[in-house]
Amino acid sequence: MHAVRIAGAGSTAFSASPERTGRDLFGEAARIAIEDSGVPRADIDRLCYGNFAGTVTERQGHQGPLMAEAAGVTAPATRYESACASGGVALRSGVEAVRSGAVDVVLVGGMERMHNVTTERATEGLAMAADDLYESRAGVTFPGAYALMARAYFEEFGGTRADLAAVAVKNHRNALGNENAQFQREISTTDVLEAPTVADPLGLYDACPITDGASACVLVSEEYAENHDLNASVSVTGSGQGTDSLALQNRESLTRTPATERAAMVAYDDAGVAPADVDLLEVHDCFTIAEVLALEGLGLYDPGDAIDAATSGETTRDGDLPVNLSGGLKAKGHPVGATGVSQVVELTKLLRGDHVNSSAVPDASVAVAHNAGGTVASATVHVLEVRS
Amino acid sequence: MHAVRIAGAGSTAFSASPERTGRDLFGEAARIAIEDSGVPRADIDRLCYGNFAGTVTERQGHQGPLMAEAAGVTAPATRYESACASGGVALRSGVEAVRSGAVDVVLVGGMERMHNVTTERATEGLAMAADDLYESRAGVTFPGAYALMARAYFEEFGGTRADLAAVAVKNHRNALGNENAQFQREISTTDVLEAPTVADPLGLYDACPITDGASACVLVSEEYAENHDLNASVSVTGSGQGTDSLALQNRESLTRTPATERAAMVAYDDAGVAPADVDLLEVHDCFTIAEVLALEGLGLYDPGDAIDAATSGETTRDGDLPVNLSGGLKAKGHPVGATGVSQVVELTKLLRGDHVNSSAVPDASVAVAHNAGGTVASATVHVLEVRS
Repeated sequence: MHAVRIAGAGSTAFSASPERTGRDLFGEAARIAIEDSGVPRADIDRLCYGNFAGTVTERQGHQGPLMAEAAGVTAPATRYESACASGGVALRSGVEAVRSGAVDVVLVGGMERMHNVTTERATEGLAMAADDLYESRAGVTFPGAYALMARAYFEEFGGTRADLAAVAVKNHRNALGNENAQFQREISTTDVLEAPTVADPLGLYDACPITDGASACVLVSEEYAENHDLNASVSVTGSGQGTDSLALQNRESLTRTPATERAAMVAYDDAGVAPADVDLLEVHDCFTIAEVLALEGLGLYDPGDAIDAATSGETTRDGDLPVNLSGGLKAKGHPVGATGVSQVVELTKLLRGDHVNSSAVPDASVAVAHNAGGTVASATVHVLEVRS
Repeated sequence: MHAVRIAGAGSTAFSASPERTGRDLFGEAARIAIEDSGVPRADIDRLCYGNFAGTVTERQGHQGPLMAEAAGVTAPATRYESACASGGVALRSGVEAVRSGAVDVVLVGGMERMHNVTTERATEGLAMAADDLYESRAGVTFPGAYALMARAYFEEFGGTRADLAAVAVKNHRNALGNENAQFQREISTTDVLEAPTVADPLGLYDACPITDGASACVLVSEEYAENHDLNASVSVTGSGQGTDSLALQNRESLTRTPATERAAMVAYDDAGVAPADVDLLEVHDCFTIAEVLALEGLGLYDPGDAIDAATSGETTRDGDLPVNLSGGLKAKGHPVGATGVSQVVELTKLLRGDHVNSSAVPDASVAVAHNAGGTVASATVHVLEVRS
């Protein structure tokens, strides 16, 4: 198996940019990542690209070839779609391709554009991540689905809206100074608790925003990195994926996320690390409760124990286990198809020491990226390690 | 590299089945393929699944988990989308996964459902395979785009509408007795030439139909096949993918398909075969001209030489190089996301000797499947070989 290095990483600003097309956004992210890598475009062997709702927001399927062209790449290009985990599965496919020796250089990336359509249309688009037959057409959208999970969690394990609010407050604070983040402003617990209710117990500030943006990474084999003297100190050492029933009604539990558990088990085993080795994480906090469930699914907390991780300060910037130092989906933003790749862009910078929050984790060596689709019907987990 | 065997293959009937949901269709194809393979569902390590327009026709994205559940599989599941080559890229991903040793058993498949929406809506859905900015919104749909290619071909190399008609006549004849084919009836050259014009020079019978259906294959490593005494005589020995500009306007030529050329070069090299070794093919004949361009792109004919391959009888059932013995997209039907997998299902049966047209190719050992997306902005080529 060939070791996989991250030679370059880049994102556009995450924002509301209805005037920018998808190809414009992805072209920019790809250019930043490729320039960061020092790899000539002609060496890129394939593009693995994630996008979720382009057919709805841009009437544009078949985005693989389109985005290859936008990136100035002529290699074979494929679009992966796994709802909000589209970026994660594209990344995983790129990692597997380099590992297997099939290729030496892969451009992985993702893009989403949603502010160019009405909120109603964007909501319809996002609802396609749920089961149309048993959920969407019955009126269940994602705030409602995650509210069900939060209520079940409170009932089973306890916890309060203030515990969830602490996650939002933490992630907004982390986004301060992250130049790519959509929201670079602090919020207070009171702001969260007094915000309009979206789906009880979740309020407006328990939810991530709708975001336009793109991210990309250049993955290379260790041999390629060494032969080309690349500065690629961060490696992808573990990769896992898990799948669960699409509809919540078919799950045994509303408070466990077996797709995350399976993906994590595979990724840790792959990397030869244990949860206790992890120094920092980017997890899929599409709603505040999702961060809690992710930390438990990833084996960092026992079921029921992660609810006060932010409240207690354990997962804050200065805690023992910083989570979502980028600001997370909550404050950095959630351009759906890009998110899974964006997490790795942020972790790469954090581990390399060129992130605004790198000073919070000066000795970090093991990082985890967790990307989820729907109500965690899909999950990918990647382990990143830095050579000191 | 681990050798890849096809342990099982199956399709639903291809037809207009507006009453059947996508999960119903894919569940059936998966069941047939799994039963054909003799592999227990619990041994399936992943699902690679192709679908193109489900977000438009069923408001359903995130079909990986949905279709895993429909197939009774709990393994990680990912949807691949590359327009009409969605099945081909899903297949290729499964082949690569087994080859690399990452997994032993992969269920690959695809599904499309389009008859449940209006023709206008289906046309809109299909147009998403083209470049929205430069083609679709200017009114270019696929009959128009392929008509441009046909006119350019006639101008550059010569050829007649009757030559194209011979492709349609041949493929309809091949579909006779193929129990899964959408059209099991002969048509005459006159039928084709006198059919209503869709986009000059292409008439109604130069185009494939809109189809509902699903296909699936179980791929296994050679080691797994041997350890489990599977009857898996057909191997996938070559796999290639190529990408071109999405919009026709950015191409150097309207009569060449470099994505097919690149995919073929990689696949032949991979399998260690030359075009002259190929005994039969399933190629992407979404329009009659597309079969001509495919045969040239695949290196079986020089540019300009394939136009009369059907007229002369070379590619008919009893010719030297039978093409689309299944009936092709033209008569077997074209359930978009399933097509690339369906071609391999048909070739597997043809090579194993359990296809209605196996008697046409009793000594065949090398077969090629060619799947294309859009105006061949995406192409996959797979080489199949049978152990005698």
